[in-house]
Amino acid sequence: MPYLSRALALLATSLLILSTEFASGQPQAMLHSWNDRPAKQAIIDFVGAVCDTKGPDYVLPAERIAVFDNDGTLWSEKPIYFQFLFLRDRLQTQLNKHPQWRQTQPFQAALESDWKTFFSSEHTWFPVLHAAYAETSTEEISRIVKQWIATTKHPHLPRYYTELTFQPMLELLTYLQAHGFKNYIVSGGDIEFMRPWMAEVYGIPPERIVGSFFPTQLESSGGTAKLKRHFKPYFFNNGPNKPVAIERHIGRRPLAAFGNSDGDLQMLEWVAAGPGKRLCLFVHHTDEEREWAYDEGLSDGLKKARHKGWVVADMKRDWKVVFPFELPPPAKAR
Amino acid sequence: MPYLSRALALLATSLLILSTEFASGQPQAMLHSWNDRPAKQAIIDFVGAVCDTKGPDYVLPAERIAVFDNDGTLWSEKPIYFQFLFLRDRLQTQLNKHPQWRQTQPFQAALESDWKTFFSSEHTWFPVLHAAYAETSTEEISRIVKQWIATTKHPHLPRYYTELTFQPMLELLTYLQAHGFKNYIVSGGDIEFMRPWMAEVYGIPPERIVGSFFPTQLESSGGTAKLKRHFKPYFFNNGPNKPVAIERHIGRRPLAAFGNSDGDLQMLEWVAAGPGKRLCLFVHHTDEEREWAYDEGLSDGLKKARHKGWVVADMKRDWKVVFPFELPPPAKAR
Repeated sequence: MPYLSRALALLATSLLILSTEFASGQPQAMLHSWNDRPAKQAIIDFVGAVCDTKGPDYVLPAERIAVFDNDGTLWSEKPIYFQFLFLRDRLQTQLNKHPQWRQTQPFQAALESDWKTFFSSEHTWFPVLHAAYAETSTEEISRIVKQWIATTKHPHLPRYYTELTFQPMLELLTYLQAHGFKNYIVSGGDIEFMRPWMAEVYGIPPERIVGSFFPTQLESSGGTAKLKRHFKPYFFNNGPNKPVAIERHIGRRPLAAFGNSDGDLQMLEWVAAGPGKRLCLFVHHTDEEREWAYDEGLSDGLKKARHKGWVVADMKRDWKVVFPFELPPPAKAR
Repeated sequence: MPYLSRALALLATSLLILSTEFASGQPQAMLHSWNDRPAKQAIIDFVGAVCDTKGPDYVLPAERIAVFDNDGTLWSEKPIYFQFLFLRDRLQTQLNKHPQWRQTQPFQAALESDWKTFFSSEHTWFPVLHAAYAETSTEEISRIVKQWIATTKHPHLPRYYTELTFQPMLELLTYLQAHGFKNYIVSGGDIEFMRPWMAEVYGIPPERIVGSFFPTQLESSGGTAKLKRHFKPYFFNNGPNKPVAIERHIGRRPLAAFGNSDGDLQMLEWVAAGPGKRLCLFVHHTDEEREWAYDEGLSDGLKKARHKGWVVADMKRDWKVVFPFELPPPAKAR
């Protein structure tokens, strides 16, 4: 009885929303890890305005699209984008087939975690990404990524990578979704790396994950068809390419955009340039005790944010907790 | 009170689904324009199997993805793909700026509706597509397409193009959606042409419309950024490119695929090659009285369908009505 179970699920959701509304008094209680400061208020005001059916800024639910950068916006990015730690480990497992990588750049730098050499030029590291996925089907990469992310800990912290997501941003994802928004990831990360785990961690399904990718081509052999990845042109979903990807993939201008670096600036500008009420927010890494404090990578963005009155979430001052594991354990039932 | 109204909307949906279930007795009553023949039964069996929580073929709702070709599958495509009639009309409005088009191929052929010349080579017609959108923003193209589709009639029939959609396929879209499926368009049409009207006509929002497109690049001038279309490389979403687009855009293998030509064959093969229960269906244009009867464009596909046991919907025999306007008017309330 698929109908019946679907209807009951919807019924349960309706009651859940009603109970959230009436039990908490204020739906913004969902944002409980945000301090009562202007950043939180700006989020609440924006959502209130686009959901107010009687107000001038009302937007139909179908049009409520929010786009999120990932690295540094939804989870940490130190000492290096976590994807590159995955790639390093993946190269390691392929060394028996490619022993020359030990002495060939940029492979050697990745294998030795020499990220300064590795990132000395954008184009030098594309071959590493390609090598990591090249001979592997989507299904197999998905399995490998899932296993890696479930079992590998951060190099300096006793934590799995998915524990290093930002609790206030997870609450923001939920808060927006509860108000009819569709959340999308628009990240420089590769789609192959992001899609396998984001549904579980962020509640964002594969079809709403927009990232970097290699071109593929359908090739048939022995009765089965495979998508074979080619090296060029790699679509690097960063900077001015983010609006390009948003237009191609989503086909409408989002209402809200969240980033943490100059690589997100054009995405925020693209969103801000639309008509009506918009929300643009930069996460600013200011907390060296709980996370990391750094400004490199966010320079023009910060100037623009101050000039345009965009929201800057100061991690140290705006967030009660940074990571989910800082939350107190739930109270025991008596 | 966005929460309250959302909860009430969900509540209403729950009750609607429950009432559909109990009032009709059989949810397949939704497919009322399909004759009781094997094609209809195959659809019902497939949907029943993937929705049966106790059966071996059960699939979680999140994984229920269906992909539809558009031209010839959801609406007619004679005398020529309707998009090209739009392009012809669009060239006409730009003739004052580009008078040389009257004597330049392939523009001249399009302007004169000489489709044989126009389609003599795939690459000759890409410039026409590009010219139609080149200097125009997405918002403006959307407005132009919406106006065209709302006001222009078919060259040989006293009907708007959106009246020439197939009633049994519209029912199929609704039927799948009611069973938790997300329907996607995966068509050779341009995203700029399809996105403005498909939400209203098919219930499919822009972000689920995968089509052909020109590459764009973000360019800033005078403080505002625009996506500028470049001519190459055009992504022609046809044949082997359909699985490429599905993987890039959706990121999971659909369970069901619907097409009508050899340009859809690789898409159906891609879907069929996944594990578990699958549904692949070709619409076969066999009805010269109510629509058109033709086999050109569907040759390998038909052979493959017969070999693999895919469903072939014979318009003449499987469909009670072809177009929505053939339906009897609703009974008057007493």
